Amino acid sequence: MHNPSEQNFIQQLSIDCVIFGYHQKQLQVLVNKLNFNGNFWALPGGFVFQNEDIDKAANRILQERTGISEIYLDQFYVFGNATRNNLNFIDELIALNPHMSIDEKSNKVEYEWFTRRFISIGYYALVDIRKVVPQKTDLDESIHWINIKDLPSMIIDHNDIVLKALESLRVNVDEKRLAFNLLSETFTMKEAQELYEAIFDKPFARNNFQKKILDLDILDRLEKKFTGAANKAPFLYRLKK
Amino acid sequence: MHNPSEQNFIQQLSIDCVIFGYHQKQLQVLVNKLNFNGNFWALPGGFVFQNEDIDKAANRILQERTGISEIYLDQFYVFGNATRNNLNFIDELIALNPHMSIDEKSNKVEYEWFTRRFISIGYYALVDIRKVVPQKTDLDESIHWINIKDLPSMIIDHNDIVLKALESLRVNVDEKRLAFNLLSETFTMKEAQELYEAIFDKPFARNNFQKKILDLDILDRLEKKFTGAANKAPFLYRLKK
Repeated sequence: MHNPSEQNFIQQLSIDCVIFGYHQKQLQVLVNKLNFNGNFWALPGGFVFQNEDIDKAANRILQERTGISEIYLDQFYVFGNATRNNLNFIDELIALNPHMSIDEKSNKVEYEWFTRRFISIGYYALVDIRKVVPQKTDLDESIHWINIKDLPSMIIDHNDIVLKALESLRVNVDEKRLAFNLLSETFTMKEAQELYEAIFDKPFARNNFQKKILDLDILDRLEKKFTGAANKAPFLYRLKK
Repeated sequence: MHNPSEQNFIQQLSIDCVIFGYHQKQLQVLVNKLNFNGNFWALPGGFVFQNEDIDKAANRILQERTGISEIYLDQFYVFGNATRNNLNFIDELIALNPHMSIDEKSNKVEYEWFTRRFISIGYYALVDIRKVVPQKTDLDESIHWINIKDLPSMIIDHNDIVLKALESLRVNVDEKRLAFNLLSETFTMKEAQELYEAIFDKPFARNNFQKKILDLDILDRLEKKFTGAANKAPFLYRLKK
């Protein structure tokens, strides 16, 4: 197990990342199954070095988990309730993993690090899922893309963090042109609409949607997509530079 | 001078508050002039107790400064650059205030507290300026409402914090029905429009504005305001419960 207390991290401060992808017309979230006996799931996260900007820390964590460095990410909320700590989760974990070092109290400092209250800065990221090769850390048994509607129960408040990230994504999706980070570089209007329907979890009327998106004036229209049926070929679009 | 290092605060974490009011058709921000020789201005701020939710800490700080407890407030951004510390400001302050205890190193712990890197959670609050009696703390020489366009140069990144708060206010003003916290309980459409013009720093066309606000379906229309000229009396509105 890592021992963060020996490194030069800011104390009681963590970063939790909600990494959104899009696949099979559904939003997906990257989550880790922890490498212990028991069914412990968590968002990718980490800590901030004393000499590190918080945005750089989030970028470092995201790059470790996705293998890609150019990621759209933004902080969206700070989770800072006084009761926010690992105690419940650690107790259950120790009960199920009687031989782990944290139980033997061989490292009291490490135990104290993990059981203190943490204030966590939530970042969300939007990635093209085809470019990501999910990377697990020593702490993970495995790492998975999971449909946002099928997420398992996660440790601490990680399920709430996902809900809040989704809420922020919905609020900012137009203003910050976020959604298109989830698609390939070029896409049809139908693909854009399906993406918006996944984000908002509701259908949009085709004509209204097209007008709304075009009114944003953020897309370039490219050549028609070749489908074999020339008269029905849809246009391709790309986000303006 | 307070000695926060002796209290049970979370280390390297602060809260800075942008308290918006509205007066004479302009947004106003509550700022403190610090109680030292020199021209040091700062946003109201403070720290978080170990057993205190961050939202409660922000509420406590706001209540201390405004005297009112029912305030609309929300976190809007975390300021966490690695270079974010008081060192420049403290050096200048010590140079201008040679007799202050922090200079005499009589309390090294206190000096270390104030000169470490701080991650600051920004909260904005929107208040009815007529209900507020600004309160200074021991650290302040005075506290003032200042037109957002006339703010002095403030310590560290406090001017940037105000800009970011204004940006967040503009993004969230409709969705969260924020603006009306700045007005009296009842107001005319003209007053609402003037408020929006102050927030966005641009004029709105009257008909468009009225349609936009009424379409939000967040206002109740009340009786006409008595002005003496019955045929031109404007309607009063109130935010729906």
